[in-house]
Amino acid sequence: MHYFTVGPSQLYPIVPRVIKKALSDGITSVSHRDEVYITLQKELVHNLKSLLTIPKSYSIFFLSSGTEAMERIIQNTVTSHSHHLVNGSFSDRFYQTALELGKSPTKTEVTIGESFDWNSLHIPSNTELLCATHNETSTGVMIPLNKLYQLKMNNPNLLIALDTVSSMPYADVDFSKIDMTFFSVQKGFGMPAGLGVIIVSPQALKYSSGSYHSFNSLKQYADKNQTPETPNVLGIHVLNEVVKDMLKEGITSIRHDIETKSDLIAAFVKSSQSYTFLAQDPLVRSKTIHVLKTRGGSSSLIRRLVKKGFLVSSGYSSMKNDYIRIATFPSHELKMVKKLLQHL
Amino acid sequence: MHYFTVGPSQLYPIVPRVIKKALSDGITSVSHRDEVYITLQKELVHNLKSLLTIPKSYSIFFLSSGTEAMERIIQNTVTSHSHHLVNGSFSDRFYQTALELGKSPTKTEVTIGESFDWNSLHIPSNTELLCATHNETSTGVMIPLNKLYQLKMNNPNLLIALDTVSSMPYADVDFSKIDMTFFSVQKGFGMPAGLGVIIVSPQALKYSSGSYHSFNSLKQYADKNQTPETPNVLGIHVLNEVVKDMLKEGITSIRHDIETKSDLIAAFVKSSQSYTFLAQDPLVRSKTIHVLKTRGGSSSLIRRLVKKGFLVSSGYSSMKNDYIRIATFPSHELKMVKKLLQHL
Repeated sequence: MHYFTVGPSQLYPIVPRVIKKALSDGITSVSHRDEVYITLQKELVHNLKSLLTIPKSYSIFFLSSGTEAMERIIQNTVTSHSHHLVNGSFSDRFYQTALELGKSPTKTEVTIGESFDWNSLHIPSNTELLCATHNETSTGVMIPLNKLYQLKMNNPNLLIALDTVSSMPYADVDFSKIDMTFFSVQKGFGMPAGLGVIIVSPQALKYSSGSYHSFNSLKQYADKNQTPETPNVLGIHVLNEVVKDMLKEGITSIRHDIETKSDLIAAFVKSSQSYTFLAQDPLVRSKTIHVLKTRGGSSSLIRRLVKKGFLVSSGYSSMKNDYIRIATFPSHELKMVKKLLQHL
Repeated sequence: MHYFTVGPSQLYPIVPRVIKKALSDGITSVSHRDEVYITLQKELVHNLKSLLTIPKSYSIFFLSSGTEAMERIIQNTVTSHSHHLVNGSFSDRFYQTALELGKSPTKTEVTIGESFDWNSLHIPSNTELLCATHNETSTGVMIPLNKLYQLKMNNPNLLIALDTVSSMPYADVDFSKIDMTFFSVQKGFGMPAGLGVIIVSPQALKYSSGSYHSFNSLKQYADKNQTPETPNVLGIHVLNEVVKDMLKEGITSIRHDIETKSDLIAAFVKSSQSYTFLAQDPLVRSKTIHVLKTRGGSSSLIRRLVKKGFLVSSGYSSMKNDYIRIATFPSHELKMVKKLLQHL
């Protein structure tokens, strides 16, 4: 089966080999307080910083999911007022998280499939943290990062958190203008689920609250290249190998490859009578998550594709029956994208 | 290498095979909202309940570590007053977690290597939750569960939380008298780290606080055989296979086998001039974690054992240089325990 699902998705090609070797090398039995582990985490942090051009002064922490990252961001940095740019289910999840943690969040919400009107965007003056979703996995809308950078430059004391769960490593983030960026590994890194990564600015690290995953606790262990708890050691090892492989290929080439695959899908939809994009404006359309309205419903189409060896995601939540979602991550081969389009 | 470390430890024999098959079967690409996953979680919950005799009315939730379980227990069920039975670093971690979360915990603390004087044990009358560590991984002390059951019977409104991180599945818990029991999979289940399990009573489920891992949120998803976030799907699959294998072997046989291995170590230490137990009273000595004081220090001994193909843990924290720790989990073969003892 070829998994074009939006995550968990197709494994990055080297992953099965890496996991099998890790099993025979005993990585799965290594203690997280051992030198072997410390060297691994140190190497991974170094490699991630190289791949994504993360400033030296920034910290990288390992969590268990993107959902956890949302919680830790609110818990650590917000006393009362976060403001949320909501344009789909995952940005709304971020907003709900703040509510559930007893904060008083506000939001700017737009219609599903659209981006924000940046010129008229109003952020309350008491906002401590602005939360944005780079790539809405539920709608296939990608917001322009330079608009966020502009906000940060105009409000240097405002913390900005960015969900890049389904856009990293495609997301070319200028980390000097974003305080907390997070992703999970089962999407763009083509790995088994169970690991989240958050990249934190020195400015955000001035805040801390909570227990083992307070920023203070995370930083104290990260400074020793460790985690407070026993982490997903195998996941951390596999991520390091994937990042090393991506460094070999080169991030520019990886990003270009994603755009090529995405452009193919866009060209197909444009010429098609059966499919239309939920995100109608090409300028805000995601390059990694393609949400297509299907004539005749999604379930029979998905069943037909499965018979051909391709799995795509259904639409999210209430869009389940009318939409499909197709991912173009680094793990998806160009020739398989072409084959998938032939079957659509 | 044979890993007699206290966790991560030796893999349970079927684990490498199960992971390799999962990779070729595409389990690592399965969506956590898909029927395949729902069936898996349903089966795992059923199998865990069978293996450990967990009442039908209890809920099983999947977290990322034992450390997270401590945090979620305090967060969900304590307004102010938890009381902690502290006899080592991990029970103290539970107490510290309550402090870090802004509660006003109290504790009964005993000397390292000892258990509690149950007759004189005083629990403040305003205590909402009593936290105990069945098996202190730092000291090798195992507390008698019937003393906890007695406390519960005398104080039915008192919630009791039990850390069985390094004693499950050896721990034969009467769940009807314990409200929250948790463990992680890299110890007695012989798995790669990155998954925690918590078993929650209907009485504890009346409480809930937090965001995606509030008991309400966990329960809402567990009722659909799902998790709020994208979980460690591979870990959940592997745990199911390990539990199935343990069901085949039978829990009585597994527990008996652990006692046989532990008794061998005890007999060896008794006859030895070079080793003594930190836990001097055999009645409170752990059957799964053996903490031995070594004449001549631990580091040269550990190096010598590594050359013979055996890895044991050093003592915990300040006991690092003088003690070693040896685990006897289901994954440790009796004949390898004998070989290890020959080299000690």
